[in-house]
Amino acid sequence: MLAHRFVPGKSRLARLDPADTGPFSGRDDPRVKRRLERAIETMVELQQRLVGEARHRLLIVLQAMDTGGKDGVIRRVIGPLDSRGCRVESFKAPNDDERSRDYLWRVHQRVPKSGEIVVFNRSHYEDVLVARVLGLAPPAAWKRRFEHIAAFEQMLHDEGTTLVKIFLHISKDEQKERLEARLRDPAKRWKFDEADLEMRARWSDFQAAYEDVLQKTSRPDAPWFVVPADRKWFRDLAVAELIAGTMKRLDPRYPEPRLDLTRVRVR
Amino acid sequence: MLAHRFVPGKSRLARLDPADTGPFSGRDDPRVKRRLERAIETMVELQQRLVGEARHRLLIVLQAMDTGGKDGVIRRVIGPLDSRGCRVESFKAPNDDERSRDYLWRVHQRVPKSGEIVVFNRSHYEDVLVARVLGLAPPAAWKRRFEHIAAFEQMLHDEGTTLVKIFLHISKDEQKERLEARLRDPAKRWKFDEADLEMRARWSDFQAAYEDVLQKTSRPDAPWFVVPADRKWFRDLAVAELIAGTMKRLDPRYPEPRLDLTRVRVR
Repeated sequence: MLAHRFVPGKSRLARLDPADTGPFSGRDDPRVKRRLERAIETMVELQQRLVGEARHRLLIVLQAMDTGGKDGVIRRVIGPLDSRGCRVESFKAPNDDERSRDYLWRVHQRVPKSGEIVVFNRSHYEDVLVARVLGLAPPAAWKRRFEHIAAFEQMLHDEGTTLVKIFLHISKDEQKERLEARLRDPAKRWKFDEADLEMRARWSDFQAAYEDVLQKTSRPDAPWFVVPADRKWFRDLAVAELIAGTMKRLDPRYPEPRLDLTRVRVR
Repeated sequence: MLAHRFVPGKSRLARLDPADTGPFSGRDDPRVKRRLERAIETMVELQQRLVGEARHRLLIVLQAMDTGGKDGVIRRVIGPLDSRGCRVESFKAPNDDERSRDYLWRVHQRVPKSGEIVVFNRSHYEDVLVARVLGLAPPAAWKRRFEHIAAFEQMLHDEGTTLVKIFLHISKDEQKERLEARLRDPAKRWKFDEADLEMRARWSDFQAAYEDVLQKTSRPDAPWFVVPADRKWFRDLAVAELIAGTMKRLDPRYPEPRLDLTRVRVR
């Protein structure tokens, strides 16, 4: 597997190389294109079965630093899926209605139903990341949230949801280049936000907060996967193969027809 | 306090008398009417502050056997509250949409927001009561739910919700009389459901399941209160004083005006 399955106590984020490209020398390696195509074909095929069977629920959590590639992954890896059985849910700063409930309220509402794949573009993890680094919640509050989140995800798992949590891991240098590209490119300039620079200034605080999240919330039933994401082509391939592999293990099957179809005549 | 705060390991449902009337000899005791009026006045008064302050969230869970008096309590004790800050949420058998998510999904959606009082008429506890007694979920599944529920309620508490869980405790004999009254009274006959008799036939299984619920899920931050409910007047008074007392402890206060109101002139 190209993604790194994070094992608390053994794995360390700081030791994982964001520029890793696994067995490939570069994007021109002919295996790269072939494997990406195959992984996406598998995803598309198995999603049809997932929808038909209407049993499994697949929740994919995507987290990353700014410019980490969440939108790119959603466009290139999730985009080919049939939107009738797949939703992307983006979590920005909570609105008034959301703030007047607990932080898991808006998240729980959007979990997948049977037969559905849901991708969280950011998630409840912001409530132990941004909330912590920017001091939006007191330490006693965000520390308790690790337990809430673990229990919430365990409940989802016990009741039939498969969770795959993905951290797109980029380096500080790579972020610099991407932010600069945003400033230069008229088609990307609108995405630039001064707040991104504030977040970037807290880079090491965020890395430490992510390390903590991975150590505390990667569990057998709700594992975290770290995807080296400095190289976009490697990132897309790693994510696509991770999701395709997860779907294969779910082994979704079309339901048996309820009628004896050999006796049905379409007139 | 007239309601019994259930302490796991010390309290036992089977030892609590559904016909208990505390210090009162009967409904004609003049203190009964006076105390009920005072409790409801307190609730109404404090609710105005609760809405104005928009900080606290109060969740009242009501559980009982059929005919236990949930509807009566809602009408007489909750009814006087201002509906702008108070909702009653009833949970019947889940519909298709609800069944295709985890059992806490529909429950979490309806929790109170800041300044609000929400009463659950039945609740997620049905998923460890009916689901267990009628065998709708395998034992491994409903047993895990005790942990999910404890964690869910703890999260609500940690994030600012006050929980009061009330079991209206009636005797099997009292239920018999009430079901017979339903059959006789043309205004109540529509409420009669054959399924009630099936549930009644499992009376002792349900009592054992409730005992288990109380032992396993009554915790300091989400306590259960057992209210003797054979006497409707006592039940209403006990619930009203329990809720009024809880609201007093929240001590809601009107927010300070943001302007200097002495300088405001209404022309």
